[in-house]
Amino acid sequence: MIGYAFMGRAHSHAWRTAPRFFDLPMAPEMAVLVGRSAAAAAAAADQLGWREVETDWRRVLERDDVDLVDICTPGDSHAEIAEAALEAGKHVLVEKPMANTVAQAETMVAAAVEARRRGVRSMVGFTYRRVPAIQLARQLIADGRIGEVRQVRAQYLQDWLADAEAPLSWRLDKDKAGSGALGDIGAHIVDLTQFLTGQRFAGVSGMLETFVTERPVAESFSGLHGTGGSERGPVTVDDAALFTARLTSGAPAVLEATRYAWGRKNAMRIEISGTSGSLAFDFEEMNVLQFFDGTEEARTGGFRRILVTEPDHPYTGHWWPAGHGLGYEHGFTHQVVDLVEALAADQDPAPSFEDGLHVQRVLDAVERSNAETHRWVQI
Amino acid sequence: MIGYAFMGRAHSHAWRTAPRFFDLPMAPEMAVLVGRSAAAAAAAADQLGWREVETDWRRVLERDDVDLVDICTPGDSHAEIAEAALEAGKHVLVEKPMANTVAQAETMVAAAVEARRRGVRSMVGFTYRRVPAIQLARQLIADGRIGEVRQVRAQYLQDWLADAEAPLSWRLDKDKAGSGALGDIGAHIVDLTQFLTGQRFAGVSGMLETFVTERPVAESFSGLHGTGGSERGPVTVDDAALFTARLTSGAPAVLEATRYAWGRKNAMRIEISGTSGSLAFDFEEMNVLQFFDGTEEARTGGFRRILVTEPDHPYTGHWWPAGHGLGYEHGFTHQVVDLVEALAADQDPAPSFEDGLHVQRVLDAVERSNAETHRWVQI
Amino acid sequence: MIGYAFMGRAHSHAWRTAPRFFDLPMAPEMAVLVGRSAAAAAAAADQLGWREVETDWRRVLERDDVDLVDICTPGDSHAEIAEAALEAGKHVLVEKPMANTVAQAETMVAAAVEARRRGVRSMVGFTYRRVPAIQLARQLIADGRIGEVRQVRAQYLQDWLADAEAPLSWRLDKDKAGSGALGDIGAHIVDLTQFLTGQRFAGVSGMLETFVTERPVAESFSGLHGTGGSERGPVTVDDAALFTARLTSGAPAVLEATRYAWGRKNAMRIEISGTSGSLAFDFEEMNVLQFFDGTEEARTGGFRRILVTEPDHPYTGHWWPAGHGLGYEHGFTHQVVDLVEALAADQDPAPSFEDGLHVQRVLDAVERSNAETHRWVQI
Amino acid sequence: MIGYAFMGRAHSHAWRTAPRFFDLPMAPEMAVLVGRSAAAAAAAADQLGWREVETDWRRVLERDDVDLVDICTPGDSHAEIAEAALEAGKHVLVEKPMANTVAQAETMVAAAVEARRRGVRSMVGFTYRRVPAIQLARQLIADGRIGEVRQVRAQYLQDWLADAEAPLSWRLDKDKAGSGALGDIGAHIVDLTQFLTGQRFAGVSGMLETFVTERPVAESFSGLHGTGGSERGPVTVDDAALFTARLTSGAPAVLEATRYAWGRKNAMRIEISGTSGSLAFDFEEMNVLQFFDGTEEARTGGFRRILVTEPDHPYTGHWWPAGHGLGYEHGFTHQVVDLVEALAADQDPAPSFEDGLHVQRVLDAVERSNAETHRWVQI
Repeated sequence: MIGYAFMGRAHSHAWRTAPRFFDLPMAPEMAVLVGRSAAAAAAAADQLGWREVETDWRRVLERDDVDLVDICTPGDSHAEIAEAALEAGKHVLVEKPMANTVAQAETMVAAAVEARRRGVRSMVGFTYRRVPAIQLARQLIADGRIGEVRQVRAQYLQDWLADAEAPLSWRLDKDKAGSGALGDIGAHIVDLTQFLTGQRFAGVSGMLETFVTERPVAESFSGLHGTGGSERGPVTVDDAALFTARLTSGAPAVLEATRYAWGRKNAMRIEISGTSGSLAFDFEEMNVLQFFDGTEEARTGGFRRILVTEPDHPYTGHWWPAGHGLGYEHGFTHQVVDLVEALAADQDPAPSFEDGLHVQRVLDAVERSNAETHRWVQI
Repeated sequence: MIGYAFMGRAHSHAWRTAPRFFDLPMAPEMAVLVGRSAAAAAAAADQLGWREVETDWRRVLERDDVDLVDICTPGDSHAEIAEAALEAGKHVLVEKPMANTVAQAETMVAAAVEARRRGVRSMVGFTYRRVPAIQLARQLIADGRIGEVRQVRAQYLQDWLADAEAPLSWRLDKDKAGSGALGDIGAHIVDLTQFLTGQRFAGVSGMLETFVTERPVAESFSGLHGTGGSERGPVTVDDAALFTARLTSGAPAVLEATRYAWGRKNAMRIEISGTSGSLAFDFEEMNVLQFFDGTEEARTGGFRRILVTEPDHPYTGHWWPAGHGLGYEHGFTHQVVDLVEALAADQDPAPSFEDGLHVQRVLDAVERSNAETHRWVQI
Repeated sequence: MIGYAFMGRAHSHAWRTAPRFFDLPMAPEMAVLVGRSAAAAAAAADQLGWREVETDWRRVLERDDVDLVDICTPGDSHAEIAEAALEAGKHVLVEKPMANTVAQAETMVAAAVEARRRGVRSMVGFTYRRVPAIQLARQLIADGRIGEVRQVRAQYLQDWLADAEAPLSWRLDKDKAGSGALGDIGAHIVDLTQFLTGQRFAGVSGMLETFVTERPVAESFSGLHGTGGSERGPVTVDDAALFTARLTSGAPAVLEATRYAWGRKNAMRIEISGTSGSLAFDFEEMNVLQFFDGTEEARTGGFRRILVTEPDHPYTGHWWPAGHGLGYEHGFTHQVVDLVEALAADQDPAPSFEDGLHVQRVLDAVERSNAETHRWVQI
Repeated sequence: MIGYAFMGRAHSHAWRTAPRFFDLPMAPEMAVLVGRSAAAAAAAADQLGWREVETDWRRVLERDDVDLVDICTPGDSHAEIAEAALEAGKHVLVEKPMANTVAQAETMVAAAVEARRRGVRSMVGFTYRRVPAIQLARQLIADGRIGEVRQVRAQYLQDWLADAEAPLSWRLDKDKAGSGALGDIGAHIVDLTQFLTGQRFAGVSGMLETFVTERPVAESFSGLHGTGGSERGPVTVDDAALFTARLTSGAPAVLEATRYAWGRKNAMRIEISGTSGSLAFDFEEMNVLQFFDGTEEARTGGFRRILVTEPDHPYTGHWWPAGHGLGYEHGFTHQVVDLVEALAADQDPAPSFEDGLHVQRVLDAVERSNAETHRWVQI
């Protein structure tokens, strides 16, 4: 695994935990953690449960005891590492967003296509797909329970930048992060829309906004955010991204991602209205799926609050009894399960690099639309 | 009062009820109800509590015992009636949308401006402004409790056309209704955004969609909708309207109006994020305002579910004790109260025809944007 | 109508409004309002829409133009007025609680039984039965949608006495009010439990508590509560009442009524678990009924939030389109509708004085249980 | 660790995970798993991450490399194992309910008191205390944010026995489980009431009910419940338990535990009303604490939905960013953290065996009250 910040901790937990609750066809071993500082990486490896440490990721690719590389670094390094790893015959799991530009994503796809021929697999880490309620939503849509998709409305609302004095981090630096709310959280609702509907985005009209253009430089980091000092630096990414869109079927969609919505901590919401029903999800209640069945008689019709913790719900039978909810990190554990099962079955895991590239193209289209007075951009 | 369908019933109830719960400075008398069929109008007048009946609205304008004309007809007749009434020296309350076109709205404004000089007043019926929770939201924003407005997200979701067999009515006929979801319900969230923020829309990029282009012709009407027969006719208005926008301050906004969201019956929702807090409202819980105070310490911060039924909340002290909620029609009663108080004080009631015109311009801009591949349209 | 405080206003509104929205078989006329002070009663009559005024209720009973007496006074006068009215051949609607003691309620029942033989009808005003969601719950239970009733849990939580400085009123005086939270609000959940299940309470073990035993004497009243002065007087009723119970089927129930639950404004909640499903209601969301169907497959099972505003829901088709909720006073209007329809059909309206007596017996059993160290009291 | 069913899996996860997210002062080693069948225990040890296996728990007590014994067996064996372990100088963590009878709990307390003198520590596993929202509630009450406790209402509602064909398990056998809903889930709300208020129960009036007295014998178990066969056996425990109570301060409380509430999967709810505010919690939304501050001005007062995931909330800073919720098992991990920290600091962890004994006394008082016609039983 390369990188050991927020995402590295989540991935490590998943690798440790998956075999304890699921009967995996192969037993993952947590071999090497890579970090630039040997000392810091060693401390992290000890804390997170990795056997060894490297400071240069290229060295890992030379090792025979490494079959899979898990890339948890900022987006600007994804392409180089992923391509080298695939070239070296290592399976690759790369955190989202897959890349910072469409061009990078395209070369990554080319590398993945080529590697696939050699049986070397690749996957992008859109873990929210693995929330049980989202999987159930996907099943219900695939089963025709809401009919044809008519409309999508999705929001990803956070508030950790609503305070104008919240400090800078690499997530606010375009060179490192590629974009702001758009790529960091908007990418999730783009992916989920495509995953749930089984369609792709066909065009967008987008708007980006940076509310606070200068922030204190962080003095130290604890977890995701850090605390600020007196020096100030520029914010080079968007704080909010909003766009209308059409899916390939022509269905209209409206999406918003922002880190400025006071009181919304991690409100990733998606609602899909079909010809015969609706589904709604909010990550702030991640164990719940709302389902309205339009074929029900009106007298007893209503959104059902499905607590997605039953034994026959996706993944949940491996955990606790009904009503005993799961948390954020379970998505990562399920990702490991699905990845290992795909590798053992000699199949391509999903989402593929092609899926990741398409998300990247949507993000790019939003940026271009915004740059050209919100004009419509076909994808 | 002219017209006695859904809106006419709501207005009649308001005229009857306002003086019973509020100490009005003038006592309204419900003089004449106007309808094309004398028999039907007489039955309605009897049911709704009007003293007399006319079949030609022009005759009402000649009467000395009529001071105010309340226009509850479809939008295509608003301009003609309102202008004639103002000309005749009658105060005018006109249901929203004020008109079916910007041009009509402009002549109405001209008439209103001229009439105002003679002390003749005019008002548009955006009754959702008079929901106590909305008034409280306005007060809190004006008091600076959420700081400066950063972003607006608003939705008006209904599902009464989600069934493709729901019948045609005048609301689906562009000639009568002007537009579909856009003008019928989108107008409300446009008005509320402007009312709550104290700003106007500066530009939009919009998308309209008609999902079902042909529907059964209604054989009979009961209330709003009617039941369908075997003949079919064309739907000439939009079923859904979505748009991104900017307010005059530059704040981004995203709005959606649809009658196709299964399970959402009357979900008029608006959430406003400011620099120091947020407010959220959903008409399906019309007695509640959600308020997040970003200046609160994080440990005890959270959206407060304010039950807007306290004696010191707007309007509610005239009704019942705390926790005893109000219903849909109370907005109309409050509208009568505010209108009568303004007339008695010789002041202009709000929203003015100018306010209505601006809403019309926003709707028009959305339609033009949609017609021109969703391009940005400045207002 | 006798009395014109909080309840008098609600009843007047109902008498005025019912014929406007419902096709009543008889047209109610609001003849005489009775109050002790002629001047105050006249002002109230004018405000509330009554034709004439009397200061002695006995005079009303002599009038030929009065067919029905609506008693809205405090509980201590109910028996005397109701019995005299029935004796005089007037139909009677009496506000709940029907009486302050079981003995009074028994003589009232005797009078009602006797009057019924003469075609003179009587009814107790448990208006919460007329909330559409409650009527729907009753229908679903009667239709077997939750199977046999297993358990009932009900709460009526308010907070208007949570402030120890909230002033005295007649509602805190045992002589006037009979009891405190127990009779004022506990009576409602007792009645609803019996109404919804179709059963009666068979026994209870109860506990009463008075948290604040002395309060400021109110200087003036506005609406329900008033504001306090410096003088203090004793609170002679309970502030909270809680009891376990069994219904006639043996089903266990647990009930709580309190005016001390900070933040709960009018949270009248009832949840009924049956052998095949559950229903839950909270008056703070009065237009919603929660329904869980245990026969549904577990994968899509969940509490359905039924917005009880559809045309085919009880009463609601006479009001507004789906999603346009009703308020507190609609229960009173529906009560008038049901009462007038019963009288026109020469049938006994429900709830009867016998129903009211049984509620009184439950309240009395709770008081006796509390007085005797919470022992079990058979009813 | 002794036992490896549902609780054993949760405890194993906690021992594995705690050192990965928290800086523990001592590093736990997962030495020996004990189970009656060597083969099954070996498979479980492999799955759950234990180094070795024993089939006789007494052998573990003789080992020098075991410092702490974690008892996850059914309640009937707790006393014997715990006392022997303490005698052998091993610290003890015992799952709740601590014992099946008061007598057993008393001898366990005697053993714990004696062991404590030797520096040997003991703790009962009421893990719900370790949910961050519950810890926050405790802090707010201790800080005086709701004033003095006036009333408690608590419910623990499940529905896994609502289906009359759900099979027997040891949890329905009085010899193994001690009691049914009362001890299994009622014990949790008894403990939480005492933990949150800092008070003990002083007396109760209780009612127990067994709705289904015979059930299919389970053929196989998967997780908690199993699936039924054709043979039938008796249910010897309660299905539901309800009781009114008083705390030592005299504050009234009402509690209900049931496994028959269709649709409620794991609704452990507690609401505490104080003299100046209220707190409410529902495990089905375990990352949320509802807080009403009665000192707030009424205009903006409302229950705050605190998402207890902020860096300065209890435990949560060690996990994920704000809004990224935790799940059921985190309570167990926090329990390990608190236990290890107490041991390292040479302090007694909480809840103590004395706390467990008091819970047992409350359960026993409910059973005695039920047996004697619900009479009041002083504790």
